[in-house]
Amino acid sequence: MRRTLQDVIMDLQRFWADQGCVIWQPYHTQVGAGTMNPATFLRVLGPEPWRVAYVEPSIRPDDARYGENPNRLQQHYQFQVILKPDPGNPQEIYLQSLLHLGVDPALHDIRFVEDNWESPALSAWGLGWEVWLDGQEITQFTYFQQAGGIVLDPVSVEITYGLERILIALNDLDHFTSIPWNERYTYGDMNLASEQERSRYYFEIAGVANLWEMYSRAEAEAESALAAGLVLPAHDYVLQCSHLFNLLDTRGAIGVTERAGLFNRMRDLSRRVAEAYLAQRQALGFPWLEAATAAPAAVLPPAAELAAPADFVLEVGTEELPAGDLSSAIDQLRQAVPRLLEAARLEHGEIRVLGTPRRLAVLVDSLAQRQAQQVTTVKGPPADRAFTPDGKPTAAAEGFARSRGLAVEELDVREIDGGRYAVAEVSEAGRPSTAVLAERLPGLIADLKFERAMRWESSGATFSRPVRWLLALHGDQVVPFGFAGLQSGRRTRGLRLRTPEALAVDQAGDYLGILGQAGVVLDPRQRREQIAREAAAMAAEVDGEYAEDNNLLDEVTNLVETPAVFRGSFAEEHLALPQEVLTAVMKKHQRYFPVRRGGALLPYFLGVRNGDRLGLESVVKGNEHVLRARYADAAYFVRRDLEHSLEHYREALSRLTFQTQLGSMLDKSQRVEMLVAKLAHALNLTSGERSSAVRAAHLCKADLMTEMVVEMTSLQGVMGEKYALRAGEPADVAQAIREHYLPRQAEDGLPATRAGLAVGVADRLDTLVGLFAVGLQPSGTKDPFALRRAAIGLIQLLARTETAIDLRQGIELAAEGMPVTVSDAARQDCLAFIIGREEALFGEGRAYDVVAAVLAAQGHNPASALQAIDRLGEVVRQPGWPARLQAYARCVRITRSEAERHSVDAARLREAAEASLLEAVERAEATSRRTGSVDDFFSVFDPLVPPITRFFDEILVMADEIPLRQSRLGLLQRIAALSDGVAELSRLEGF
Amino acid sequence: MRRTLQDVIMDLQRFWADQGCVIWQPYHTQVGAGTMNPATFLRVLGPEPWRVAYVEPSIRPDDARYGENPNRLQQHYQFQVILKPDPGNPQEIYLQSLLHLGVDPALHDIRFVEDNWESPALSAWGLGWEVWLDGQEITQFTYFQQAGGIVLDPVSVEITYGLERILIALNDLDHFTSIPWNERYTYGDMNLASEQERSRYYFEIAGVANLWEMYSRAEAEAESALAAGLVLPAHDYVLQCSHLFNLLDTRGAIGVTERAGLFNRMRDLSRRVAEAYLAQRQALGFPWLEAATAAPAAVLPPAAELAAPADFVLEVGTEELPAGDLSSAIDQLRQAVPRLLEAARLEHGEIRVLGTPRRLAVLVDSLAQRQAQQVTTVKGPPADRAFTPDGKPTAAAEGFARSRGLAVEELDVREIDGGRYAVAEVSEAGRPSTAVLAERLPGLIADLKFERAMRWESSGATFSRPVRWLLALHGDQVVPFGFAGLQSGRRTRGLRLRTPEALAVDQAGDYLGILGQAGVVLDPRQRREQIAREAAAMAAEVDGEYAEDNNLLDEVTNLVETPAVFRGSFAEEHLALPQEVLTAVMKKHQRYFPVRRGGALLPYFLGVRNGDRLGLESVVKGNEHVLRARYADAAYFVRRDLEHSLEHYREALSRLTFQTQLGSMLDKSQRVEMLVAKLAHALNLTSGERSSAVRAAHLCKADLMTEMVVEMTSLQGVMGEKYALRAGEPADVAQAIREHYLPRQAEDGLPATRAGLAVGVADRLDTLVGLFAVGLQPSGTKDPFALRRAAIGLIQLLARTETAIDLRQGIELAAEGMPVTVSDAARQDCLAFIIGREEALFGEGRAYDVVAAVLAAQGHNPASALQAIDRLGEVVRQPGWPARLQAYARCVRITRSEAERHSVDAARLREAAEASLLEAVERAEATSRRTGSVDDFFSVFDPLVPPITRFFDEILVMADEIPLRQSRLGLLQRIAALSDGVAELSRLEGF
Repeated sequence: MRRTLQDVIMDLQRFWADQGCVIWQPYHTQVGAGTMNPATFLRVLGPEPWRVAYVEPSIRPDDARYGENPNRLQQHYQFQVILKPDPGNPQEIYLQSLLHLGVDPALHDIRFVEDNWESPALSAWGLGWEVWLDGQEITQFTYFQQAGGIVLDPVSVEITYGLERILIALNDLDHFTSIPWNERYTYGDMNLASEQERSRYYFEIAGVANLWEMYSRAEAEAESALAAGLVLPAHDYVLQCSHLFNLLDTRGAIGVTERAGLFNRMRDLSRRVAEAYLAQRQALGFPWLEAATAAPAAVLPPAAELAAPADFVLEVGTEELPAGDLSSAIDQLRQAVPRLLEAARLEHGEIRVLGTPRRLAVLVDSLAQRQAQQVTTVKGPPADRAFTPDGKPTAAAEGFARSRGLAVEELDVREIDGGRYAVAEVSEAGRPSTAVLAERLPGLIADLKFERAMRWESSGATFSRPVRWLLALHGDQVVPFGFAGLQSGRRTRGLRLRTPEALAVDQAGDYLGILGQAGVVLDPRQRREQIAREAAAMAAEVDGEYAEDNNLLDEVTNLVETPAVFRGSFAEEHLALPQEVLTAVMKKHQRYFPVRRGGALLPYFLGVRNGDRLGLESVVKGNEHVLRARYADAAYFVRRDLEHSLEHYREALSRLTFQTQLGSMLDKSQRVEMLVAKLAHALNLTSGERSSAVRAAHLCKADLMTEMVVEMTSLQGVMGEKYALRAGEPADVAQAIREHYLPRQAEDGLPATRAGLAVGVADRLDTLVGLFAVGLQPSGTKDPFALRRAAIGLIQLLARTETAIDLRQGIELAAEGMPVTVSDAARQDCLAFIIGREEALFGEGRAYDVVAAVLAAQGHNPASALQAIDRLGEVVRQPGWPARLQAYARCVRITRSEAERHSVDAARLREAAEASLLEAVERAEATSRRTGSVDDFFSVFDPLVPPITRFFDEILVMADEIPLRQSRLGLLQRIAALSDGVAELSRLEGF
Repeated sequence: MRRTLQDVIMDLQRFWADQGCVIWQPYHTQVGAGTMNPATFLRVLGPEPWRVAYVEPSIRPDDARYGENPNRLQQHYQFQVILKPDPGNPQEIYLQSLLHLGVDPALHDIRFVEDNWESPALSAWGLGWEVWLDGQEITQFTYFQQAGGIVLDPVSVEITYGLERILIALNDLDHFTSIPWNERYTYGDMNLASEQERSRYYFEIAGVANLWEMYSRAEAEAESALAAGLVLPAHDYVLQCSHLFNLLDTRGAIGVTERAGLFNRMRDLSRRVAEAYLAQRQALGFPWLEAATAAPAAVLPPAAELAAPADFVLEVGTEELPAGDLSSAIDQLRQAVPRLLEAARLEHGEIRVLGTPRRLAVLVDSLAQRQAQQVTTVKGPPADRAFTPDGKPTAAAEGFARSRGLAVEELDVREIDGGRYAVAEVSEAGRPSTAVLAERLPGLIADLKFERAMRWESSGATFSRPVRWLLALHGDQVVPFGFAGLQSGRRTRGLRLRTPEALAVDQAGDYLGILGQAGVVLDPRQRREQIAREAAAMAAEVDGEYAEDNNLLDEVTNLVETPAVFRGSFAEEHLALPQEVLTAVMKKHQRYFPVRRGGALLPYFLGVRNGDRLGLESVVKGNEHVLRARYADAAYFVRRDLEHSLEHYREALSRLTFQTQLGSMLDKSQRVEMLVAKLAHALNLTSGERSSAVRAAHLCKADLMTEMVVEMTSLQGVMGEKYALRAGEPADVAQAIREHYLPRQAEDGLPATRAGLAVGVADRLDTLVGLFAVGLQPSGTKDPFALRRAAIGLIQLLARTETAIDLRQGIELAAEGMPVTVSDAARQDCLAFIIGREEALFGEGRAYDVVAAVLAAQGHNPASALQAIDRLGEVVRQPGWPARLQAYARCVRITRSEAERHSVDAARLREAAEASLLEAVERAEATSRRTGSVDDFFSVFDPLVPPITRFFDEILVMADEIPLRQSRLGLLQRIAALSDGVAELSRLEGF
């Protein structure tokens, strides 16, 4: 049946009106999402209930595609629903609405895929999902946790339908332009011209100076309105600011720093708008607040005691857990459950913890029906006061026995802590397991920790996603407890949208079988193996290999309750796109496995559906459509990008502010280019490497202005390399462009080219020195410019490639090129900051004192420092170490308080012990050593140990005669100085 | 049944979707009306068909009322429908939609009240109606004629529902806040805070400088977008400009001149947007254009010929004609029909032309069935060539006779123009009336002229409003003809929404009876009498008098097909409002008659419903609601206005630009104040009058900044008087404030106070001199500053109060105070312009030569000039006039070519005739005369006539001796100069 856009909208309006929603209208200001409409942004604040539904034509300039992309548009129609508070079954209501629109769930793959939402401009966030219909994101489903900086209580459920995608899916179309709007017109008839024109406006025409001016005026109006306490007028201007920001951003006119600053200002305004709204409603006494009508929670009857050990099962039924949270929860339960049973003195057989996105299950074999008995020894009065010397109990003993419920004859005497006491052995009978578990299970669930947890109901319980049912059975008995407003019971649920969804479990032992029959594969390992097996087979069918990817496989395993692998294909022409692009889209966006043959990609992908193989053709079709759209998008970007040279994009960097005082990204890249040239010597570059590095530095940031990179930042450098090759740059220059970003994180690869290394070092030094110079170093937890990452990257780059270089010099050279003065303090702070990162980085798994000692002496050279740390670490573990340290320490300790370095007057050192030491020291000093080398240090120091020992044995350093004393101290100071640049040995333990 | 806003919207969406409309969404930019949404503004352009319906939250800052007014809001929800082309029955479809919403037409008064629409900013206009439901405007119904400066073909029907008012009516509510939005929330819940906050923002907070800057930036972006050919982005910025303009206007920051300038710029942009859109669609080949499917018009069979004279009736059925157009059409038909019948040689009895808003009817008693026979005399060859001298016909005679179908014997001989000719008497038989009328009736209808006519269908016919049926019967025969795509027939229609609406008429003679039975009162006179009678009776019921108002009565008569007068009441508290306000609202807005007792208003009004008395209670209720809302609005304004002093508003005039170079309205009022002081002497003010006038001038423009006047400009001065009295100003000052605007038009009253007169003169002088000084005098038909009206007002003021004043001096004094230099040319042009107006004004009904003669001499003093004109007019009609003129003329003619004035050397004038003339002239010159007085002129001139005559008889002026000649000429020049300042007699006829 052909569905038209306008009918779908009218149907949704009717559906949600019937759910008690206010039907609201789109907002009169350009918004990026229905969330910004005050019917959402403001109404979710505060305690008053609220239900609303409305269409919102949402405008996102950077999604403009000249109408070419199948489903990406600068304006798309959202249908927005807010349910506040959570009705308890919002997913089910939502799925009903899809049925109402004609989506047959049996023929499609409907999935809730983790997607957390955050709007920096609105200071808002929430947790939830994208809902996928055959791989296509058709809805955003979010439990709103915060808006305008205010924690939401109650939480609102936000459901945002993407109408174009739903219509494409419902009508099995290839492109948004074909969507029937009504019986006569298509979506293309209505809006294609708008897409084309607005794309051109955003990308080519919009006047940056005008838009900036409008921005600042709108901001000023927002301030005036707020100052007058006017919530809605202020909000309107915040929205205008947000739209103007998006326009400027799409036009490439907003730099990294500016972005952060603008976000801060918009966030601040949003917060004040939200606070003002809340204050307004409060002043009105929250007029929509209803009298609390919640029935008091029913108190569950205690379970009957079992006659014998029996199987136990706990199932926590949830809305779809994020893949990572599911793994983490299973791991935590595997540790927590045995501890809990032990603490509860409950004997048990095997424990299994299993789970799917919708349930966590703990299965315990033959769990005792009752706690083990516990015997405690209670200390009474001292034996000599409890018993007469002839062993008769005294009144004290009788009182003690009575207080413990024993006969006085049952008392015993024991020696405790060196004294003798009367003692009573008290045995405590165990309680029934059901009662014990009823007390402890809520804590078991509540104690689970998640990276991000959410609230959803009035008790304030938090969890990864809402918990919707609790099954807890010991044998045939329900273990009665409550959590997050729910009561435990014996009902579980099968797969979504299969009838009957609710399933009763009589016995704990039946649980696994019932779920298995319902099609739920409870064991992650089993799902994982099935996916890998099916994927391999499907790849083989097209003579390909399934490219195993453990991370992805783990994730996909956790996205389904029952997996069905399918193979889709895409047009061969898309293989012309860079492989990184193809696989990034497949894996990151769609969770597909690529198919390769001999390393090369084939035009296929392997997806995993949640469910069986019924209607798989339409699932495949839907997924293919999605991938086609995404590849079309990528191809569009690449095509557009190739319309200009890299030099063109490089020049465009002048529009991208790096930081106000430090200039544009073009300025930065010019500085990096100069710095690379200066560092070439220090980095030992050959002249060929040097010129490659300079060229690479010249072009290294250019791809930031290409559309492909603007779209997928993760491709920065990758696209730079491709485009450079296309432009005929030498291969090593192109490669260096990509590599200068390496390493991007801890386990990442390193540049293979020296040029890439050099540019990477220069780029990071420029960033660090520049931002320290203008006072934007990280403070507290704030690090808006990611300087920590820059420093860590720099350190890893140098240390892992064993590139010794003195960062003091590097900082000096970087400072030379800065457009601002770099104060001495800034240079020192910058170096100290980098050394601080080294401490953290190198400290892992190494002795802290060794790390500190070396960094204090040569932290300015990370590669050398790391080698020294490792070597010194070995040295201090050697048997002779204390004596060596001792000898050195004696020299240091006695000279430590001297304010100056004394010169040594050899003529005064007439004693043999001192003369021979001087001779030894001069020999040591004359020895050539590698900078920072621990071994070289010890090779000169070790020969000094005997003369040092003799010196201290025979010589009184603190002679009365001052010049003599100073010469002796000076000699010792020269010994202490031998470790300069290697390690401050005084920081070592045992010094 | 309670109707909720959201259900009404959903019902309307469904209803119009079923009519084939695209269901569209509100626009993402603040718009004042759904018309501005491109789904209307652009889609109505060009030939492509289009049907659309959508909600549009429409924002009009100056309607903001802090949520206090019952139905006036800064944002109201429109439901907008476009039908292109006209479907032929759009009113009927619309009325069906009301039924669909639950409006029972039998219980309500549904009216189509003329309301033509124009949007200067969009360069768009159309003709149509407000639809009234019980006096409440619930819909705007317009046939769009032009948009973006482009003539629309086909015409679009635009239907704009005002949802709040419909909901108020459907639920019988008092205030918009009570409208149920859904089952749970009211409109107030949703939007009251928005109304309050935004009102405050618009009136108190909005930052003028910021908004101006945003305006200019938006305008610049619109230009860039247009330059790139981008229609929609340009349109968006035009809309932003429009909204910003509205904000600035509401904030009182836009002066008269600026307004005109801004409108011009916005109009220009809109036009270019529209042209660009049209060009775009054309380039696409107008893809939505359908193949023409209109069936060829059926050719009506000719009517059978009647056997005898019979009654004739022509009914032109229309959609509701404007009251003025109905009167005018009836008048035109009363003249045209007899002429037509005469020209057609159709004998007839009485002719009656009657009509209602929905029909024009021509009734002719016993119209001949056939044209009268016509006998024509045709001139043949000269008699002497047609007949031999013996009277025999020649070949020429025979040929002539044959060519006329006569025997040669039937020729006759007549004398024509002095010659004798053979003549033939040709008699032409009449054709059947039906055939003759069929040819002539289309022209009869097409020739009707209306002040504004419209097109609505594809033939391009124009009429006041669409013609929807044609009834034309002669006896029992249809007179077959076509007009505007319609064919004539025998069907008429009864009252709207009464069944059966269509009525067949067998015989012309039945027509009146059938309509009467259907309740249509076809005769305007009858309706008028009925209304007056019922109104008087209803007023009497409450001991009041019906305040007859002929203009209003005429209008109301033409608004109904069958009248039913009803009486409503309003709260007594509203009587506290100024009576002018109360009656202006009643008459102008609502077409109600006030009820008075002894001159004072009673809290009642008399309305006239279209229809019978069924359900009259709800009609009364609805009308009372409307009036209550309007009075609440007025009370709101007055209350707000009284929060500040008049001085406060006067100072606020600094925000209102009068003209860029001439400064603000405050500057102007300061100039007027100074000018009044200077003019006091010339105007012969007493010192008391002078100080009142100065004070009045000080305050005279202050009320322009009050909300009541901003709302109803017609109350300027009226409110100034009220507020001045409230502020304790002397009564004559207050009165002068009101009176300085008098006379506002030709028949208007005059100031009763001298102070009012003085301020009125000064105000107009300032306007005229100032705008001439800066070169903004009227040119061609353009007169943006209404300087013609200012000049006419000034002239009437002076002339009708007989206030003689020399405008040359007035202009001089006004020029002194100007902030710009007033060139001599500007002063002269200004005076000439005023004199030009005098010529037009005084010329009516007076001899043009007399007017020209007087104005040439004393046009600078209108009062004096008018008296002189009237007096001179009498003089020239007296018997002795030619001789007097002759005497004067002789003196002038002979001296006319002299370049200089000659002095008279009395010694040389030795002849008696010249000496006595000199003596007489000296006596005349010595006589004291009133400035400009005609009588005084003649009283000194008449005695000169004899000596002049003698002089010319006896003296040769042009003597050979030069000094003598010059003395004689000089003497005559002195006679000619006697009429200086009175009249240039040389301009008189007969001179």
